[in-house]
Amino acid sequence: MSDAAPLPTAAVILAAGKGTRMKSDLPKVLHPVAGRPMILHVVEAARALGAARMVAVLSPGLAGVAEAVKPAAIAVQDPPLGTGHAVSCALEALGDFEGGVLVLFGDTPLIRTRTLVALRAALAPGVAVAVLGFRPPEPGAYGRLVLGADGSLERIVEAKEAGPAELAIGLCNAGVMAIDGRHLKSLVGAIANTNAKGEYYLTDVVAIARARGLGTVVVEGDADEVLGVNSRVELAQAEAILQARLKQAHMEAGVTFEDPASVRLSIDTQLGRDVTIGPQVVFGPKVKIADGVRINAFCHLEGASVETGAIIGPFARLRPGTVIARDAHVGNFVELKNAVLGEGAKANHLSYIGDADVGAKANIGAGTITCNYDGFDKHRTQIGAGAFIGSNTALVAPVSVGAGAITGAGSVVVEAVEADALYVERAPPVQKPGWAARFRAKKLAARQPKS
Amino acid sequence: MSDAAPLPTAAVILAAGKGTRMKSDLPKVLHPVAGRPMILHVVEAARALGAARMVAVLSPGLAGVAEAVKPAAIAVQDPPLGTGHAVSCALEALGDFEGGVLVLFGDTPLIRTRTLVALRAALAPGVAVAVLGFRPPEPGAYGRLVLGADGSLERIVEAKEAGPAELAIGLCNAGVMAIDGRHLKSLVGAIANTNAKGEYYLTDVVAIARARGLGTVVVEGDADEVLGVNSRVELAQAEAILQARLKQAHMEAGVTFEDPASVRLSIDTQLGRDVTIGPQVVFGPKVKIADGVRINAFCHLEGASVETGAIIGPFARLRPGTVIARDAHVGNFVELKNAVLGEGAKANHLSYIGDADVGAKANIGAGTITCNYDGFDKHRTQIGAGAFIGSNTALVAPVSVGAGAITGAGSVVVEAVEADALYVERAPPVQKPGWAARFRAKKLAARQPKS
Amino acid sequence: MSDAAPLPTAAVILAAGKGTRMKSDLPKVLHPVAGRPMILHVVEAARALGAARMVAVLSPGLAGVAEAVKPAAIAVQDPPLGTGHAVSCALEALGDFEGGVLVLFGDTPLIRTRTLVALRAALAPGVAVAVLGFRPPEPGAYGRLVLGADGSLERIVEAKEAGPAELAIGLCNAGVMAIDGRHLKSLVGAIANTNAKGEYYLTDVVAIARARGLGTVVVEGDADEVLGVNSRVELAQAEAILQARLKQAHMEAGVTFEDPASVRLSIDTQLGRDVTIGPQVVFGPKVKIADGVRINAFCHLEGASVETGAIIGPFARLRPGTVIARDAHVGNFVELKNAVLGEGAKANHLSYIGDADVGAKANIGAGTITCNYDGFDKHRTQIGAGAFIGSNTALVAPVSVGAGAITGAGSVVVEAVEADALYVERAPPVQKPGWAARFRAKKLAARQPKS
Repeated sequence: MSDAAPLPTAAVILAAGKGTRMKSDLPKVLHPVAGRPMILHVVEAARALGAARMVAVLSPGLAGVAEAVKPAAIAVQDPPLGTGHAVSCALEALGDFEGGVLVLFGDTPLIRTRTLVALRAALAPGVAVAVLGFRPPEPGAYGRLVLGADGSLERIVEAKEAGPAELAIGLCNAGVMAIDGRHLKSLVGAIANTNAKGEYYLTDVVAIARARGLGTVVVEGDADEVLGVNSRVELAQAEAILQARLKQAHMEAGVTFEDPASVRLSIDTQLGRDVTIGPQVVFGPKVKIADGVRINAFCHLEGASVETGAIIGPFARLRPGTVIARDAHVGNFVELKNAVLGEGAKANHLSYIGDADVGAKANIGAGTITCNYDGFDKHRTQIGAGAFIGSNTALVAPVSVGAGAITGAGSVVVEAVEADALYVERAPPVQKPGWAARFRAKKLAARQPKS
Repeated sequence: MSDAAPLPTAAVILAAGKGTRMKSDLPKVLHPVAGRPMILHVVEAARALGAARMVAVLSPGLAGVAEAVKPAAIAVQDPPLGTGHAVSCALEALGDFEGGVLVLFGDTPLIRTRTLVALRAALAPGVAVAVLGFRPPEPGAYGRLVLGADGSLERIVEAKEAGPAELAIGLCNAGVMAIDGRHLKSLVGAIANTNAKGEYYLTDVVAIARARGLGTVVVEGDADEVLGVNSRVELAQAEAILQARLKQAHMEAGVTFEDPASVRLSIDTQLGRDVTIGPQVVFGPKVKIADGVRINAFCHLEGASVETGAIIGPFARLRPGTVIARDAHVGNFVELKNAVLGEGAKANHLSYIGDADVGAKANIGAGTITCNYDGFDKHRTQIGAGAFIGSNTALVAPVSVGAGAITGAGSVVVEAVEADALYVERAPPVQKPGWAARFRAKKLAARQPKS
Repeated sequence: MSDAAPLPTAAVILAAGKGTRMKSDLPKVLHPVAGRPMILHVVEAARALGAARMVAVLSPGLAGVAEAVKPAAIAVQDPPLGTGHAVSCALEALGDFEGGVLVLFGDTPLIRTRTLVALRAALAPGVAVAVLGFRPPEPGAYGRLVLGADGSLERIVEAKEAGPAELAIGLCNAGVMAIDGRHLKSLVGAIANTNAKGEYYLTDVVAIARARGLGTVVVEGDADEVLGVNSRVELAQAEAILQARLKQAHMEAGVTFEDPASVRLSIDTQLGRDVTIGPQVVFGPKVKIADGVRINAFCHLEGASVETGAIIGPFARLRPGTVIARDAHVGNFVELKNAVLGEGAKANHLSYIGDADVGAKANIGAGTITCNYDGFDKHRTQIGAGAFIGSNTALVAPVSVGAGAITGAGSVVVEAVEADALYVERAPPVQKPGWAARFRAKKLAARQPKS
C-alpha cells in the first residue's frame, strides 16, 4: 500500500442478476445478512473507504433496490449481456472520473473495506487494473489467475479452457476489480462478445489492458469475503461467517458470550466492555449496551439502549425506543416498547410496559400492563420515582402515577394517582363456604353414566 | 435403474436388538428422530416405495413397538440368534412373496427411499441379492465388500477375518439388502451357525447365492444414511444429520432460516415460499406455514396452521388446533391452543387464548385470558369480528363477545357481551392520600434495631 | 499407574497472570466456565484426587480470587518473575511436604483429575519430576519434550531454540508438572534467570533434576485439557469443550438431548435416567432433575429440583428454591421462585409463583400472581391440595387458600380462603349498548381533516 493520499474512488456495484435460485419475491440483493440487506454491506464497504460516487447496476423493475441503495446512482442493464456490459451501462451515471473505480457485486456482502483499500492502492502508476484473487478450498470451476514472472497478472483463464498446469493454480478470480478511471471507458469499450454465450465479460479487460502495455496486478483476499450469495443456502453461509466475524471482534474487545454460537447479532450491535451475553440472545438492529451490563438467556432486543449495571432477562423483550437506565432490572416475560425504565427501577415479571416513563427506583409488579392503545391511538403512562405498582395492575393511558404512590394489586388505574397516595380499585370479597365442594360434587355426578 | 415397472416389494424390518446402550425404559427403536420414532422412519421409507407387505421382527414383550409399526405384521424372535435367524423368523408372516424383499433395520432411521429404490432395482434378472454398501470415513470394524472383476459382489469379509488387501477396501457392508423373494426362504434356510457365537448371519446369503450361481451385487449409499443408532450419542448424531437434511431441502425450496443451526424441525413440517424463520424456533409435529409468513425468534409450534402474511412471535407458542388466519399477528408471551385467530386479528402480548374463535380484525389486549377450564370441562370463547378486548380481561367460558364490542381493562366477562356494546366490570377507585408515605415510614421504623 | 496407595499430594496453583487480554475488570481466573470460576475447576480437580494442601499464587490485590479459592492458602508473587519464581513464592505457604506436589495453572480449567492422578503416579521411586505433555494439532510455539532412548524426559526445548529435528517433535510441554516434594525446594532454588527476559522458568527443573541424576518423565494428556484461557475467545473455546464433555457424559448415562448443541449445562447439573431435554434449555447452578422428567424447549433453571414424571415448559423459568414434585406440570411463561409445586399440581400458563407452597393436584389458573413483595419484605402464600385458583388471580401474601377451595377469575385474594369455599372479588358487570360503536364513530370523526 502506498503512503500517498488514497486515490479518489468510485464504485460500480453490479446487481442485475435475477437471483432465481433464491426462489423469492424479494430481490436477491435485498435479502438481509446480520440484519442489513446484502447490497448495503457492499455499499457500506465502499462508503467506508470514501467512495465519492457509486452507481448500482440493476435489471429493470427493481425499484426497491434503487430505493435501498440511495444515494447511489442507478443504471439499468436491459437486457443482461454480461459483466462487461453491466459496467458499460454504468459509465454514463459514473461520468468522467479519473480516480480508481471499484467494480463490486451486490451479492458478495462479506467483502471487507480493508481489502478494497488494498485493491485501490494497487492502482499504482502504470497499473490500470487490479483484480481481487482468492484461494478457495476447491478451485473447481473458478477462473484461474495466471501470474507472470514479475508477479503481475498475466491473464485470467476460465476453468473450462484451462490446461492441467493452469488448473493446478490455486489463485482464483473473485470478479471484483479496481480499474483506473482514466482507462475505464476505453477498456470496457474494447470488450468483445465473440464467445459462446455472446456476452461481454469484464475479465477481458485484463488482456485488453496488457495488450496496450498497461499494468495488471492481483490483490489477494480471503475466500470467505468473496462468497457470492445465489441461494438461501449460501445466504445462511454468509450469515454464519459474518456472525462469527462479529462475535470474534466483540470478544476481542472485552465481551463474554456464554455460548457465542447461539447468539445472533446485528451488524450495528454495540456492546460495551465486560458485557456478558447469555445463551440464546437475539439482537435486532440499533441496540446499544453499555459497559458491565448482563443480558441473560432468551432475550430479544431491537432499537434499545441499556445503561451500565442493568440486568436484562432471561426472557425479556426490549422493543424500539426502550431505554433501560443504570442498574435497572428487566425480568422474565416482560416487554418494553418506547419506554424508559428509570435508574434502579425494576420490572421483573410478566409485564407490558409500552409508551411509558418509569421513574427511578419504581417497582413494577408482576402482571402490570400499560393499556397504551385504545384501538385508534397510543397514549403515554407516567410512573413517578419510587412508585410501587401492585401486581396485575392495568394502567389505562393516558394516566400518571405520582412519585412514591402505591397501587393495589389487581387495580385498574383510570385517573391520576397522587404522589405518595394509595390507589385501590377492588370490590368487596365474598366467600361462599362449601361452594367448591358442592360444585365438584355436581360436576362429578354429571359425569356418572345415566341409568 | 430399470425403466420397467418396479418389482413388487416387501420389507422385513429387524428390530429385535435390546438397545441396552440407550439406558432407557423406552424401546430403542421408539426413540424419536425429528419427532418421529426411529423405526417409523424406516417404515415410511419402505412405504414410500410402495412396499406391499411389511414384517417387523421384534424381541418378546415390545407391545409398544408392535403398536407403533401398525399395520406392519409382527414376528417375534426369541431367543436372538443373529440377523439370518431374525429374517427366518419373519418368513411365516411374510408368506409367499415373489417380489423383492428388503431387509431393513429399525435403528437406521436415515435410510433414504431413493436408496431403497436403487436396491430394489438392482434385483435384475439373475440377481438374487443386492447389498447396500457405503464408504465410511474410517472403515475400521465394518465388513468389507469384495467385488469381482465383473463388478458383482464376490463376497463379504468380516474385518477381523480380512487380510491387508481386503482391509484396504473402503466399500463396507451396511447390512441392508434386497433379496429376490423367490429365493429368500431357500437362501436363508441354508445359513449355518458354525461360527464362534453360534449365530446365523444374514451376510452368509451372498456366498450361498453365488455357490448356487445366483447373481449378487452392491448398491452404494451415503455413509450418513446407514448410521445405526445404538446410544443417545448416536441418536443425537442422527438427529443432527436429519435436521441438516431437512433444512437444506427447505432452503432450496425458498425458505430463509436466519440461523439454521438453532432451529428444530419435525419431519413433517411444511413451510411455504418466502417464509422467514428467525433464530431459535422449534417446530413440533404437524405444523403448516403458508407462503410469506414470518416466524420470529423463540417460537414453539405444534399442530398449528399459519396463513399467508401472518407474523408470529417472538416468544409465541402455538399449540395443537391453532389456526392463524391471513395477516394476523401473534406477539410475545402469547399462547394459543385449539383456537382460531381471524384474518388481521392481533394478540400481541401476554395472553392465553384457548378453545376460542377470534373474529377478523379483533384486537386482544395484553394480559387477556380465556378461562376455558373449570377443573372438569373445557369451554369455548367466541369473540366477534372487530371486537376490542381490553387489557387484563378474563373471559369466563363458555362466553361470547359480540362483533365490535369493547371490554374494559381488567374486566372479568361472565356473560354474553352484545355487539358494539361496552362491557365493564370494575369497582369504584379509591385514593388514600399519604397512605403510601405512612406505609413506608412504618416499614422503615420496624426495621430499626429495637432499643 | 501403581497399585500402591497414592502418594500424598499438594497442589500449587499459579494464577498471578494479569489477564490483560481478557479486557475485564474481573480477574481472569474468576471468569466462569460452565458456571464455575475457572480457577475453581483447577481447585476441584486437585481436591478430587485428595490434595492435602493447596497454595494459590496470586499477584497483589486479588482479594476476590483469594476469597474464591478458600480454603487454599495464598501466596503473593510480586513482582512476577516467571513460573519458577511463582513456585518459589509458594514454598513458605506449602511448608515441608514430602509427597507429590502438582504445579497447576489457574487458567487451564479443563484439566482432568484422571490426568493429575496419572501425573502423580508417575512420581515412582527415583523420579523427581513428571511433566504433562500433549500433542497439539499445530505444535508451533510450544516447547518440545525430547525423550531419551529409555522413554524418559531428556529435556524441554523452547520452540525458538529448537532445531529442525526438535521442531518435528509433536509432543509439547503443557506446563503442568508433578514434583517430588522432597526435592522441590532444592530444585526450584537452583533455577537461574540467566535468559533474555531475566525470568525464572519452572521448566528448568527438568535439566536440574537430570544433572543431579534424578528421573524425569512425561505423562500425556489430551490437547483439550491443557487449553489455557487468556482471552474471551479462548474462554468461549473452553466453554464449548467442557459443554461437549458434560453432554457426552450425560448422554452415555441415559439422557436424551434433542439438540445437544443448543443446551447449556452447569458443571453440577444432575440429570436422571430417561430425562429428555428439549432444544434451547439453560441450566444454571444447582439443578437436580429426577428420572423420567421432560424439560421442554426454552426453559431456564437455577437451583431447582424436579421430581420424576414432571413436565416443564416450554418457556418455563425455575429459580432457586423451587421444588417441582412428582408428575407436576409447569407450562409456558411461568416463573417459580422459592416455591414448592405439589405432586400432580399444575401451573401451566403465564404465572408467577414466588415464596409459595402449592398443594398436591392444585390447579393454578393462567395469569395467577403471588404478590409476595410489599416493597420491603417477602411473604409466603399457601395453597391447599386440590385448590383451583381462577385465572388472573392475585394472591396478596401472606395469605392462604384452603384445600379444595376455588377462587373466581380476576379476584384479588386478601384474606384466608376457607377450605372448599368459593372466593370471589368482583364488581357487578355493566353493559353499555352501542357505546363501542359511538366511540369508534367519534374517533374516526376526529381523524377527518378539519375543514
